[in-house]
Amino acid sequence: MDFQLKAHDASGRLATFSTTHGTITTPTLLPVINPNKMLITPTEMRRRFHTDILITNSYIIFKDPRLRQTALDHGVHRLLHFTGAIMTDSGTFQSHVYGDVHLDPIQIVEFQRDIKTDIGTILDIFSEPHHTRLEAEDGMTTTIQRAAASLPHKGPMMLACPVQGGLYPDLRTRCAQSLSQLHADVYPIGGVVPLMETQRYTDLTMVIVASKQGLDPSRPVHLFGAGHPLVFPLAAALGCDLFDSAAYAKYAADDRYILPWGTEKLPDLSDLPCSCPICSKYAAEDLQDMTGEERVRTLALHNLYISYAELRTIRTAITEGWLWELVEQRASMNPFLSDAVRYLQEPSTHLFLEAHEPQSKTRALRYTGPTTIFRPTLQRYHQHLLTRYNPLFSTTLVIPERTKPFSRSYAQLASMLSKLMADIVVDSSLGPVPLALDEMYPCAQSIFPDHVDLETRQETNRRLKEFLKSQTVLHWTPEGGLPTTLLGPADDLDVRRIRAVADMQFGLGAAASLFSGKVNIQKSKATQKIRTVSVDGDHVVSMRAEDGLFTLKIAGAHRLHAALPAPHLRVTIQDDAIPFVLDGKSVFAKFVESCDPDLRPGDECLIVDGHDTLIGVGRLLLSPDEAAAFSVGVAVKPRETTPVQATPGHKV
Amino acid sequence: MDFQLKAHDASGRLATFSTTHGTITTPTLLPVINPNKMLITPTEMRRRFHTDILITNSYIIFKDPRLRQTALDHGVHRLLHFTGAIMTDSGTFQSHVYGDVHLDPIQIVEFQRDIKTDIGTILDIFSEPHHTRLEAEDGMTTTIQRAAASLPHKGPMMLACPVQGGLYPDLRTRCAQSLSQLHADVYPIGGVVPLMETQRYTDLTMVIVASKQGLDPSRPVHLFGAGHPLVFPLAAALGCDLFDSAAYAKYAADDRYILPWGTEKLPDLSDLPCSCPICSKYAAEDLQDMTGEERVRTLALHNLYISYAELRTIRTAITEGWLWELVEQRASMNPFLSDAVRYLQEPSTHLFLEAHEPQSKTRALRYTGPTTIFRPTLQRYHQHLLTRYNPLFSTTLVIPERTKPFSRSYAQLASMLSKLMADIVVDSSLGPVPLALDEMYPCAQSIFPDHVDLETRQETNRRLKEFLKSQTVLHWTPEGGLPTTLLGPADDLDVRRIRAVADMQFGLGAAASLFSGKVNIQKSKATQKIRTVSVDGDHVVSMRAEDGLFTLKIAGAHRLHAALPAPHLRVTIQDDAIPFVLDGKSVFAKFVESCDPDLRPGDECLIVDGHDTLIGVGRLLLSPDEAAAFSVGVAVKPRETTPVQATPGHKV
Repeated sequence: MDFQLKAHDASGRLATFSTTHGTITTPTLLPVINPNKMLITPTEMRRRFHTDILITNSYIIFKDPRLRQTALDHGVHRLLHFTGAIMTDSGTFQSHVYGDVHLDPIQIVEFQRDIKTDIGTILDIFSEPHHTRLEAEDGMTTTIQRAAASLPHKGPMMLACPVQGGLYPDLRTRCAQSLSQLHADVYPIGGVVPLMETQRYTDLTMVIVASKQGLDPSRPVHLFGAGHPLVFPLAAALGCDLFDSAAYAKYAADDRYILPWGTEKLPDLSDLPCSCPICSKYAAEDLQDMTGEERVRTLALHNLYISYAELRTIRTAITEGWLWELVEQRASMNPFLSDAVRYLQEPSTHLFLEAHEPQSKTRALRYTGPTTIFRPTLQRYHQHLLTRYNPLFSTTLVIPERTKPFSRSYAQLASMLSKLMADIVVDSSLGPVPLALDEMYPCAQSIFPDHVDLETRQETNRRLKEFLKSQTVLHWTPEGGLPTTLLGPADDLDVRRIRAVADMQFGLGAAASLFSGKVNIQKSKATQKIRTVSVDGDHVVSMRAEDGLFTLKIAGAHRLHAALPAPHLRVTIQDDAIPFVLDGKSVFAKFVESCDPDLRPGDECLIVDGHDTLIGVGRLLLSPDEAAAFSVGVAVKPRETTPVQATPGHKV
Repeated sequence: MDFQLKAHDASGRLATFSTTHGTITTPTLLPVINPNKMLITPTEMRRRFHTDILITNSYIIFKDPRLRQTALDHGVHRLLHFTGAIMTDSGTFQSHVYGDVHLDPIQIVEFQRDIKTDIGTILDIFSEPHHTRLEAEDGMTTTIQRAAASLPHKGPMMLACPVQGGLYPDLRTRCAQSLSQLHADVYPIGGVVPLMETQRYTDLTMVIVASKQGLDPSRPVHLFGAGHPLVFPLAAALGCDLFDSAAYAKYAADDRYILPWGTEKLPDLSDLPCSCPICSKYAAEDLQDMTGEERVRTLALHNLYISYAELRTIRTAITEGWLWELVEQRASMNPFLSDAVRYLQEPSTHLFLEAHEPQSKTRALRYTGPTTIFRPTLQRYHQHLLTRYNPLFSTTLVIPERTKPFSRSYAQLASMLSKLMADIVVDSSLGPVPLALDEMYPCAQSIFPDHVDLETRQETNRRLKEFLKSQTVLHWTPEGGLPTTLLGPADDLDVRRIRAVADMQFGLGAAASLFSGKVNIQKSKATQKIRTVSVDGDHVVSMRAEDGLFTLKIAGAHRLHAALPAPHLRVTIQDDAIPFVLDGKSVFAKFVESCDPDLRPGDECLIVDGHDTLIGVGRLLLSPDEAAAFSVGVAVKPRETTPVQATPGHKV
């Protein structure tokens, strides 16, 4: 099992997944191949779509004496003429469609192993949405038993064990936990096709989140039967890595033309609203004039081009940090999906999402509509404001949105405000922004329109009130002038800024420890922005231009380590790994013992040994649960180490 | 000039536009060809993109002795090796970029005529966004003078006269009116490139709406220099028919990769988030490995594939009636565009939009977010409710949303409610829906999520209150039971339904005239929905299954004609056309004398002569301003005529 995370956004991840038939990049799509009837052959798929993994059905091969013999003699790769990775399903979906299939659960796993599938699947029990709790629990128990019984027979094959449990979130989570303890290779989420067929996306979301909450985060998650691109962005944002599409062929057979935002009937189209090679070549009437196999095949090609492009869009969005924007945009075209995105605001779901959300992104956050303000990033920002922001004065001056950064009068205003004995807060579209935080992600790195919706305004008002609750509040308007009664000596805005950012980023008390002593702030000559901060001659932190957050230097790490008790900011590693880290090597996930649960992917962290001795400082590349669970890949990129103090095994 | 409208949605239109080099379907894109440097040749464009019209610059050809001679000797089509339609620009844009160009305005028009351009352009004065009112007015006056002076020289060429006037809406409208009186062939909207370059989409919207308000609706409108697909849906929804793209090449030269929702820098991309033939063939790194001309050309091809696909998407959206959905979805990805969509709620803009919006669409209306409730369709519905809906009782019972149509208990509920001596109104996500209107567009033909945003809820609450203001109101909840004090004899819901729909569709008083006498309602056996209504034995109306609105039969037309005074529902035609209409032929736009300004494209209308004698009944295919302005194409499809009474020239 070699599954390595390369980038995070939302709760989604970009990863590489190695098989004996090549390494694939996830999230990706596995087109379904019917071994009896290949509408598009695997060879053509490879040529047209760069298909590097597909899925076929071992039950169909098993039932057909000719296919079965060829597969056993030459392997499933030869049977399908495909050199990439092959996953097989087991007949479970057939049991959902046709009722019971007569099959021995172990025999079908052994068969998959014998035909040299890369990833086989156990014969799990499909849990129907209408199942009672008892039925769902029964099926789940059988699924877990079969997983336990099947795993010893998998041989060199990877084995997928689907999470079941119907619409009962606790059952889904329990099932996921039990399966995770069995160390399967891939975890599909099963029993969801009926939900997607009826556009029950809120239920689908509930099922995915509940399953993910119990699953080992180091294994790929497959959303079984998800073939319409409409669900891909949301499912990927919830942490699904693999999708499989029979839809491309099924929809084509039914004259249905797939779009990222829905489905059209081919006869209804006067133009082809798509840029794919099929739609760029043909006019709508060309397709409508086709008949039989040619028509179905051509439509299926379109459907696959669109589906693969949506996966590339998702991977781009993860790398660049705009997956939520993509999810919200897709939801705007489908009211049922829109309800599902609303469901993400539920507290339990929100907690799951926040735990995986990176602290900062390479792209500015963009407003798409009323759900933006409830994104994990903005909820977390507000939570940190309440718990980590320390006002300097007991009076707060609230200034309206349009005087915030980027407005022309801002520089003047800021210099005037620096003479006020008051804390200054901008009443902005993303909530209250203290002046000292206005260069920190997400405050400066966000794009809101002039006119946001009423719900956003109401929510930001609520947040402003909550933030100001114990303060004396004055409101300032451009016409009103400044309250001269509060004039004091000019204040150093830069010092306010570094102190506020340090507490927001590392926790309350961080500023006090980092900046005690003689502080020297170096600024960029070009931009006048803070670059580095030294204290008593030691370079403690640098401020990143792109997100206004700090990178920690070792001198800063020592200060935080001394001031903030474990497990705060800590990644604890095994002694074996220490010499490598001291040698400048990365911290591999398998050497991580534990991790501060408040850390997020991309965060600065303190690398310590089992006795909380500081080894170094670096950047965490995983979420804490991933860092603990993964046995391959890099967990922390060290920046600096402390060669003197750290000797493995010796407490200092 | 042969420009014919085929379909309407929002204020956008699908049309055919004939030139001596072929008929094109609009909205469409004219790629810009630089005659000195063809990154992609017109031949390749034709092959790859089915390009049937392009634009080049006559000023560049004029300035280059070799190009000039070839163009004069063999024509511009031979110069570019292109057999489709060619439009030329005049050097105005060069004056914007480089300052004054030394060119005689008449000479450049004659030159364009002499090189046999299909559509030439006058040398107008580019109005810059920073122009003062005086500067803008000066430039506008010169532009109008030059148009007047140039038109006599155009020969067989069509001539485009751009609307200028800077950011002053009254100047834009005045300029458009003056140019319209000169009967040019095409009306570009000029001076907008700087607005698009700085994403000032609200200003762009204001400029387009102000220009359109003064323009002859029978001529194609070209948004000059609009090359990024981001603006296409909104501009098309405001009635722009032609776009031109130099962006495909300029962006490519700058390593920029165009997407329908924005732009990416090629080096930033780890995947290609697009389905076009380029992005389906190459990986991101393949493009990044290319250098020089190959890289620019390949990026330019992608940029054009994406741009053409967006135009096809727009044409599909117009045909199927989801152009607003497309506009709102695109706006959700760009905060500046989002502000522009908000601007459409301004009363003056709204009036313009409502005047062109069809009464009903083939697709259900879909919620995309907080701007949906302000769409022209939903604002008009509410306006009609206030002015045309006639409650039967002075007490109104308000029932909550989730008991509205499609909920399971609805049929039972409806039968119970029919015994109440109260008017019954559903408090729904699109505003108040009286029970009698719940099968009429847009009430039944709309899809809202369970959770709409607060702004929508507040607006629908406001509409409910406004609607109920003179009523005694009772609120019903599923738990509360029915107010038995109001129980009366069972009421005929069908009669309520036909009366309410008739008044909403045709105006207050329509029901009284249509249904006075012995009413017989025929229903579909399969669906139990109303199909036809006869009164005193005459079939007066049929109810359409798709939108719950009526089609008028001639007996109904007579009743409405007698009851509602002119110009209500009338399309007045010239006497010459009457024999053709009586013969079952369509009413061509050139025979339309006048038209009730309250009619909308797709509406039922009364065809009358100059003395208000009823000739027939039919369906209006244009908006009233279009019906009056167009001299080609069909204005009304007659359904039935009145052969007996109507004799041309004789008043009955």
